[in-house]
Amino acid sequence: MILDKINTPKDLKSCSIEELNTLSDEMRELIIKKVNTTGGHMGPNLGIIECTIALHYVFNSPYDKIVFDVSHQCYPHKILTGRKEGFTNPEKYYEYTGYTAPEESEHDIFKVGHTSTSVSLAVGLAKSRDLRGGDENIIALIGDGSLSGGEAYEGLNNAAVLGSNIIIIVNDNDMSIAPNQGGLYDNLRLLRQTKGKAECNFFKSLGFDYYYVDEGNNIEKMIETLKSVKNTNHPVIVHISTIKGHGLAAAEENKEAFHWIMPGTLDENKPVLPVSENYNTITTDYILEHAKQDRTIIAISPATPGAYGFTPDFRAKLGQQYTDVGIAEEHAVALASALAKSGAKPILSVLSSFIQRTYDQLSQDLCLNNSPVTLLIHWGGLSDADATHLGAFDIPILGNIPNLVYLAPTCKEEYLAMLDWSVSQTDYPVAVRVPFGQFVSTGVKDDTDYSILNRFKMVERGSDIAIIGLGNFFKLAKEVKNEIKSRFKIESSLINPKFITGIDKDMLNELKSDHRLVITLEDGIIDGGFGQKISGFYGNSDIKVLNYGGFKEFTDRTPISELYTRYHLTKELIADDIDKYLKWGKCIVFRSL
Amino acid sequence: MILDKINTPKDLKSCSIEELNTLSDEMRELIIKKVNTTGGHMGPNLGIIECTIALHYVFNSPYDKIVFDVSHQCYPHKILTGRKEGFTNPEKYYEYTGYTAPEESEHDIFKVGHTSTSVSLAVGLAKSRDLRGGDENIIALIGDGSLSGGEAYEGLNNAAVLGSNIIIIVNDNDMSIAPNQGGLYDNLRLLRQTKGKAECNFFKSLGFDYYYVDEGNNIEKMIETLKSVKNTNHPVIVHISTIKGHGLAAAEENKEAFHWIMPGTLDENKPVLPVSENYNTITTDYILEHAKQDRTIIAISPATPGAYGFTPDFRAKLGQQYTDVGIAEEHAVALASALAKSGAKPILSVLSSFIQRTYDQLSQDLCLNNSPVTLLIHWGGLSDADATHLGAFDIPILGNIPNLVYLAPTCKEEYLAMLDWSVSQTDYPVAVRVPFGQFVSTGVKDDTDYSILNRFKMVERGSDIAIIGLGNFFKLAKEVKNEIKSRFKIESSLINPKFITGIDKDMLNELKSDHRLVITLEDGIIDGGFGQKISGFYGNSDIKVLNYGGFKEFTDRTPISELYTRYHLTKELIADDIDKYLKWGKCIVFRSL
Repeated sequence: MILDKINTPKDLKSCSIEELNTLSDEMRELIIKKVNTTGGHMGPNLGIIECTIALHYVFNSPYDKIVFDVSHQCYPHKILTGRKEGFTNPEKYYEYTGYTAPEESEHDIFKVGHTSTSVSLAVGLAKSRDLRGGDENIIALIGDGSLSGGEAYEGLNNAAVLGSNIIIIVNDNDMSIAPNQGGLYDNLRLLRQTKGKAECNFFKSLGFDYYYVDEGNNIEKMIETLKSVKNTNHPVIVHISTIKGHGLAAAEENKEAFHWIMPGTLDENKPVLPVSENYNTITTDYILEHAKQDRTIIAISPATPGAYGFTPDFRAKLGQQYTDVGIAEEHAVALASALAKSGAKPILSVLSSFIQRTYDQLSQDLCLNNSPVTLLIHWGGLSDADATHLGAFDIPILGNIPNLVYLAPTCKEEYLAMLDWSVSQTDYPVAVRVPFGQFVSTGVKDDTDYSILNRFKMVERGSDIAIIGLGNFFKLAKEVKNEIKSRFKIESSLINPKFITGIDKDMLNELKSDHRLVITLEDGIIDGGFGQKISGFYGNSDIKVLNYGGFKEFTDRTPISELYTRYHLTKELIADDIDKYLKWGKCIVFRSL
Repeated sequence: MILDKINTPKDLKSCSIEELNTLSDEMRELIIKKVNTTGGHMGPNLGIIECTIALHYVFNSPYDKIVFDVSHQCYPHKILTGRKEGFTNPEKYYEYTGYTAPEESEHDIFKVGHTSTSVSLAVGLAKSRDLRGGDENIIALIGDGSLSGGEAYEGLNNAAVLGSNIIIIVNDNDMSIAPNQGGLYDNLRLLRQTKGKAECNFFKSLGFDYYYVDEGNNIEKMIETLKSVKNTNHPVIVHISTIKGHGLAAAEENKEAFHWIMPGTLDENKPVLPVSENYNTITTDYILEHAKQDRTIIAISPATPGAYGFTPDFRAKLGQQYTDVGIAEEHAVALASALAKSGAKPILSVLSSFIQRTYDQLSQDLCLNNSPVTLLIHWGGLSDADATHLGAFDIPILGNIPNLVYLAPTCKEEYLAMLDWSVSQTDYPVAVRVPFGQFVSTGVKDDTDYSILNRFKMVERGSDIAIIGLGNFFKLAKEVKNEIKSRFKIESSLINPKFITGIDKDMLNELKSDHRLVITLEDGIIDGGFGQKISGFYGNSDIKVLNYGGFKEFTDRTPISELYTRYHLTKELIADDIDKYLKWGKCIVFRSL
């Protein structure tokens, strides 16, 4: 294998073009095998192999600096920068993250996982170089999909007037995660069709020196162009046309499905699992049914429709009542607000990790204007996700914005009742934290009137200890209740708060009569979250409060069981904590003892 | 006066062009007089009078809908839509807000004050119309400065493919608040120079049908073009060239100074106040002095340099060591992170109200990468500001992001010591909440070692009650201490926490020995803030905690004294609260009683 002799990017420089082509075949095979085993980003990595080889052949990383946008296309880069074992050796398949990670290699400059940041980061590196008087090349590699995010444009607008070396490679594979959305993409198509010669050119309009490479999957052609822009003294765009999923027929044919795959997707005879009911199917069924009856219902996705089950079939059925705005969460929220303000019923789905990309619009456009939008927050909760994709922060973010009603259902029936209320009312912006993980159905219709805000549900009235289990963690609350009963012989109270953004003062006050301890459980960080509102409320009383949730930290692919142990999020550990107070603490004296 | 007969936009339609021109003169005079009396946005409003008259002459508001970007240029619109008394009658000068406000008029669609949202909002209105099958015109009015914000681009990218009526008026006066920044502005200049005929055209590259009006301050010309695009069935850009401050020589000559003016700016013989030392001059002096010694120090502003005293002189002195990125807070944070990561020392100044425009970049690009950036947060605190420009939310926003160290100085000396530490260290992203309001100097150098995180300062050790006064509210804490002494004869403890993002567990634990009540005071909303972290900490102890700060609400030009009363933020009201617990509460028994 050619790869055997490639341990650092320097080793590429003595290779012939033929050897580099062979190398790309070897790398492709390794990536396909590895990703099919572990799951991960397939299409983006297969499409960028040749470009990555050319980059490392022409430039001198880490002296020259390459910034990967999103960095979900960095697998070829990892193979060439000392981490090939993560692809050649199945035992090391999980050794390296799926994104650039400075702790792994000096060739990775930033920990990145959200979209549209590479140009801004590259401008910063370039400015720093200019202040120091350095001469390294600064390269940003950004996909066409990422160009729909506003920060990418802010970066381009500033990069264009940098006045010194910066090379921005636009990897145009004519796809975002899903199909691209927006006027820019007509221009990119025109540029591809005219081999970069069209006068009407988005990049030139911003002032860039512009290069076009029609065969972005051709190493020789890529080397030729990159050599010509190396050491440029001004901002340059290299627009390359590549094929997403290049070299794997299934991925080339079904680009959306092969953007990110589950383990075993390519395996023959892989068992076809029946699609059972889950919160995605509940959501899409709900939207389809109601959209038929009300033509002002419109579902909105900022470029990640697959994550919430907005399949191509679902999108087609909705027609005009569905819109994908591209990776543009800010636009999505303002758009939704205006739709609601003028009488339509927008339902905007966003992942917890991405809702933070639009705080200002949530506050100003949505909540200050009190627009009756329905926001669905998906994948919120502690998880073993990469540090760049944690879902642990949406409660502090959404929970402290005025006017917003943020709801946490604990089962299918509550979720549907909350959707019903949210879509039919016109008084508040409403967000619903779509349950994550195990599916729960009570089989009993929820007829709660959610227009009475901040009314918690007393599920079982006990005494001494009350356990408030928010959303995903209501299940844990029930377990804790049982554990307390069996260990301490206390019949505690069990509360399903349902509302994240406010507290039920009447209920909390009433608890003072015969409770001494309130336990809050939330699936997210404690800081700035739900439980601290309860602590604040009880601050002037004799009620003790223990807040459970995650710590204020970035975890990184940490197993969830490890997190639950660290944060004491198990019935045993919580009971142990209580036990500590019972035996040795001076603060809690239980009536039943 | 022509204006006498204009009570609604309809009244314009019977006017001759000559009358409309006279009307514009009358309106100009009124605006100059009013703004010079009350203070406010001068240049933006003077430049848009003719366009606004033409808009209301051609279109039928409120059936047709006009969305104003930022809406700081809506004074002419207010005059024409039933609110002229706010300009003709000095007694009503404060009756209407300086921004669009739906509660004032059906002609105002949104409450807006932050930049770059108008196109997204207009797309929402247009989509809603299309779902309903309506036929109204949807118009967005956006300035060239606002086009530097990413959301504007996200909006344009989506507007271009709307496939139906939307009219975006780009009001190009060749200025942002300060001079424009970025490659786009070279293109706008080219378009102005070629009267819109240049082939290289940013708007056309996104797919828009493009119109250019060279004389944007000419009512007749504006009417002509607006008539030609009225009822268009596709997305249209009308790029108009106007003069910021049109018709007021001083404002035309000094566009930056006359963007927003203080009352009396135009008055003859107005007293020239000597510039006394304040936190802006301390900041700029500090940066200038240190930038001389270290060429990697770079000051960054996202388009509002005047707010922090980054005067043209300051900017010129810094040269390459200053950069304005335009209204692009997201880019600014990522840029700063990359600068810091590669060895430079960026100091990024942002207003509290605007830091929320970049939450994702703070979390991902800055804090996850742990880049040693110095963030200066200005104007943080409760205020009588418009609902769109509140500074009450930065603590919940920044306070709950991992890795960030957020500091709250209480005087000049602490501020300088924090700056020194932040700029010299490389371990953390650091934010400093620049004190707001009354200037305090102790005259004694602060030699605290801020690398020891979360160490609060015990200013006076007393007993029974501890008062923790954060940043701006340390002064109030001292007052409360004195009030408690005089009313209850208790010598309470006084604590200056300095750190917002963490708590001093050792000190808080130590207080348990002889304290019963801890009072937290913070100049911002309580929810998700600093005090609730203290409440959470003491949840399992006998210490009572009372959190003081603002409620989770949008206030709107509410006098600060009214807010302080509402929130019990005076020494008397806090002492009254304590008194209540002393006398009637069962929860606090003071040792001294």
